[in-house]
Amino acid sequence: MFSKETYVARRESLKKRMKSGLLIFPGNKETGMNYKDNWYPFRQDSSFLYYFGINLPDLYVLIDLDNDKEILFGDDLTPEDFVWVGAVEPLSTYTEKCGIAEVQPMAKLEAYIQRAQQKGQDLHYLPPYRNKITIEISNLTGIPVNEVEAKKSVEFTKAVIAQRSIKSAEEVKELHKAVNITAAMHRHAIKWTKHGVTEKQIAGELQAIAIAGGGNISFPIILTKNGQYLHNHATQAVIENGDIVLCDCGAETAMNYAGDMTRTFPVAERFTAIQREVYSIVLDAHESAAAALKPGYRFKDAHLLACSRIVEGLKGLGLMKGDTQEAVNTGAHTLFFQCGLGHFMGMDVHDMENFGEQLVGYTDDLKKSTEFGLKSLRLGKALEEGNVLTVEPGIYFNPFLIDSWKAQGKYTDFVNYEEVEKFKTFGGMRVEEDFLITANGKELLGDPLAKTIEEIEELKNL
Amino acid sequence: MFSKETYVARRESLKKRMKSGLLIFPGNKETGMNYKDNWYPFRQDSSFLYYFGINLPDLYVLIDLDNDKEILFGDDLTPEDFVWVGAVEPLSTYTEKCGIAEVQPMAKLEAYIQRAQQKGQDLHYLPPYRNKITIEISNLTGIPVNEVEAKKSVEFTKAVIAQRSIKSAEEVKELHKAVNITAAMHRHAIKWTKHGVTEKQIAGELQAIAIAGGGNISFPIILTKNGQYLHNHATQAVIENGDIVLCDCGAETAMNYAGDMTRTFPVAERFTAIQREVYSIVLDAHESAAAALKPGYRFKDAHLLACSRIVEGLKGLGLMKGDTQEAVNTGAHTLFFQCGLGHFMGMDVHDMENFGEQLVGYTDDLKKSTEFGLKSLRLGKALEEGNVLTVEPGIYFNPFLIDSWKAQGKYTDFVNYEEVEKFKTFGGMRVEEDFLITANGKELLGDPLAKTIEEIEELKNL
Repeated sequence: MFSKETYVARRESLKKRMKSGLLIFPGNKETGMNYKDNWYPFRQDSSFLYYFGINLPDLYVLIDLDNDKEILFGDDLTPEDFVWVGAVEPLSTYTEKCGIAEVQPMAKLEAYIQRAQQKGQDLHYLPPYRNKITIEISNLTGIPVNEVEAKKSVEFTKAVIAQRSIKSAEEVKELHKAVNITAAMHRHAIKWTKHGVTEKQIAGELQAIAIAGGGNISFPIILTKNGQYLHNHATQAVIENGDIVLCDCGAETAMNYAGDMTRTFPVAERFTAIQREVYSIVLDAHESAAAALKPGYRFKDAHLLACSRIVEGLKGLGLMKGDTQEAVNTGAHTLFFQCGLGHFMGMDVHDMENFGEQLVGYTDDLKKSTEFGLKSLRLGKALEEGNVLTVEPGIYFNPFLIDSWKAQGKYTDFVNYEEVEKFKTFGGMRVEEDFLITANGKELLGDPLAKTIEEIEELKNL
Repeated sequence: MFSKETYVARRESLKKRMKSGLLIFPGNKETGMNYKDNWYPFRQDSSFLYYFGINLPDLYVLIDLDNDKEILFGDDLTPEDFVWVGAVEPLSTYTEKCGIAEVQPMAKLEAYIQRAQQKGQDLHYLPPYRNKITIEISNLTGIPVNEVEAKKSVEFTKAVIAQRSIKSAEEVKELHKAVNITAAMHRHAIKWTKHGVTEKQIAGELQAIAIAGGGNISFPIILTKNGQYLHNHATQAVIENGDIVLCDCGAETAMNYAGDMTRTFPVAERFTAIQREVYSIVLDAHESAAAALKPGYRFKDAHLLACSRIVEGLKGLGLMKGDTQEAVNTGAHTLFFQCGLGHFMGMDVHDMENFGEQLVGYTDDLKKSTEFGLKSLRLGKALEEGNVLTVEPGIYFNPFLIDSWKAQGKYTDFVNYEEVEKFKTFGGMRVEEDFLITANGKELLGDPLAKTIEEIEELKNL
């Protein structure tokens, strides 16, 4: 946990923004895999962690702005529970650490909320993403299960987004740590992915590094020789010399701050000539977009800049043609780069994604696009000092998309399909790093990791 | 997947047991960790796997016994989905493999169920353990969310239990595989747990072995120097010479069959003299209980036999006294062995636990006890050929329990508290293996793994 002062200050700031009503914070529960008590690793809700720092299941906090109260609801373990999990500190120890004055048993929660409703207080809750929480909010408030999502508090959500979007120095320190564990995962992958291993074998080893780091993976590991499919998780496919491997993975620290990086590397000792050419285009797009980052600059413009660099590079390879800007404007580049340049990162690897991308990454004046490509850009708005985000352009030769668009005659003014045909078995490449937006520009999170062709080949052959 | 004939035969057997009504099989969904789309590893429902073998999210099957129909409801991926996950075979390929004749889009599911209700057909579903499924069953049937659990079909549940309790030869083969991957995890733990590593470091390495095996862990890894707490998962605690480590872990194969073993071993090169003595008692209890297993023998009696052996051993150490049988009858041994001897194992590591232990592990004539100790015995009934189960006795010196019972003067006729005091920092020990009940006795699953003191010390020092 951070210091008591940190949590108190965060809540004070929230109270100033919200002014009145009853704020309901449900903590997460354990989640069963194949039966109720066979649990997935416990993951506390990130907003709960942000305001209270208590990493335990089965808790609620109410912040009653109208009556100036903060109450944690939960039940202490009994001595018989100690048979199973050992001694656990009482909840009062935790509320002490985050500056909450009052603990009440869970059985009192429902009555408190009902009294607030009777007194006409406004109830505010964030959009739930766990079904158990949806059912509980329904039971606690009387809102039908299927209406719980619609009745979330947009005002509350916006207030939380405004706070969590700006990382404090102590959060940045934790993010550096997460990115360094993430980099260690990548160093292992680059060095130990050899002819004959399976994707899952390496992915398991990377997860071991994340776990040894004190937390776990921050999202399912993408480690694949088929990087042309954007979210293709590790499979039992055997990796062979000649393959390029795309590794997109991240660690989450014990305090639940996430890292998220991507490297693409050859299985053999060296990139082939054509692999070098495509990699160089991706790296140029990455460096160009990263160089442009600073407060006030729209991330959508960084995205479009990366798209232009990709088009320029692919024109050089003979795969695209025509005016670069026009190609980007019409979306011709989405044959090769189908997704967005990056996203906010924090306690959630796609930070605050549960609040909705329009609220988190856009503004009332900048609506998220519905066009193919741009609709997958999670972040578009102007950057602010303290934002933390990823930059992750890529080139993906998706044979299904190529066949489909070629058959439709799509973007024939900008795409040389005859040349593109030769790349249908090439795969996909992406380079991803994490940045903090500073007063004058940006700062790389974590210590530098091999990224150029030379550095990657050197690391492979150490 | 197994052969089409396997799935068809399993369903034919189920239909003979159930005769009439509409059987609703919800497949599992992806489950979000900290937001909706940041998924935990997908785990299909085990009964869905048992009858259909389809390891994909977002499916339902209806078996309409009154109209002799089997229909899979689900939606094929679109070419745009292929951008994210690559090409996926259509659902018809999967229904072909498990012998289901009909595929319908998910949008038709609700109407089918409503028509069945209007025609007065009985609806049968198994007890749901995922909240999303509870909400969906509520929406599909009109049963209020909070009544879905109570309105489960006991008849259907019993029919599934009867089938899944008896493992076929092809299932046993898969279980052997799971146990062998599990044994590889243990060999790694015994060999590589050294002074100075953290519990999580080793636990992560064990998970890597499970993942490399093609599946994942079958339950959260218990790897702890505090094995006296029964479900104490791996932490960031540093392991040191002099500690004993209890490792209880298992792998699940790509086909979702589970292994589950426990070994307890010293961090140093050798067990200490007192560690040897306690370990020998646990091993004797384990071997005695395992030797007794055969069809017709009540597992509760195997449990009580292990309890007697533990009391005998602890009397030899001077920690217990008095008549062994009387001590076991009164429950005095539960100061040291607070839980049950074992449980069924199959596709779920606690096989079918979501159906309830009374239905799975007991009978109408043998009710599950509510006494401390016996209430944690998940399996009590007479064994049958084809059952697969664990045997896992242990001795746990829980300081909180010792202090509490000593203060209460509990079991003073049988416990020498003065001697027990000396063991309050000893920790806990358990030995666990997996067995198949055969026509005349039992068979160990998997190849033998180091288990005696000599074998463990030899493996450590290889």
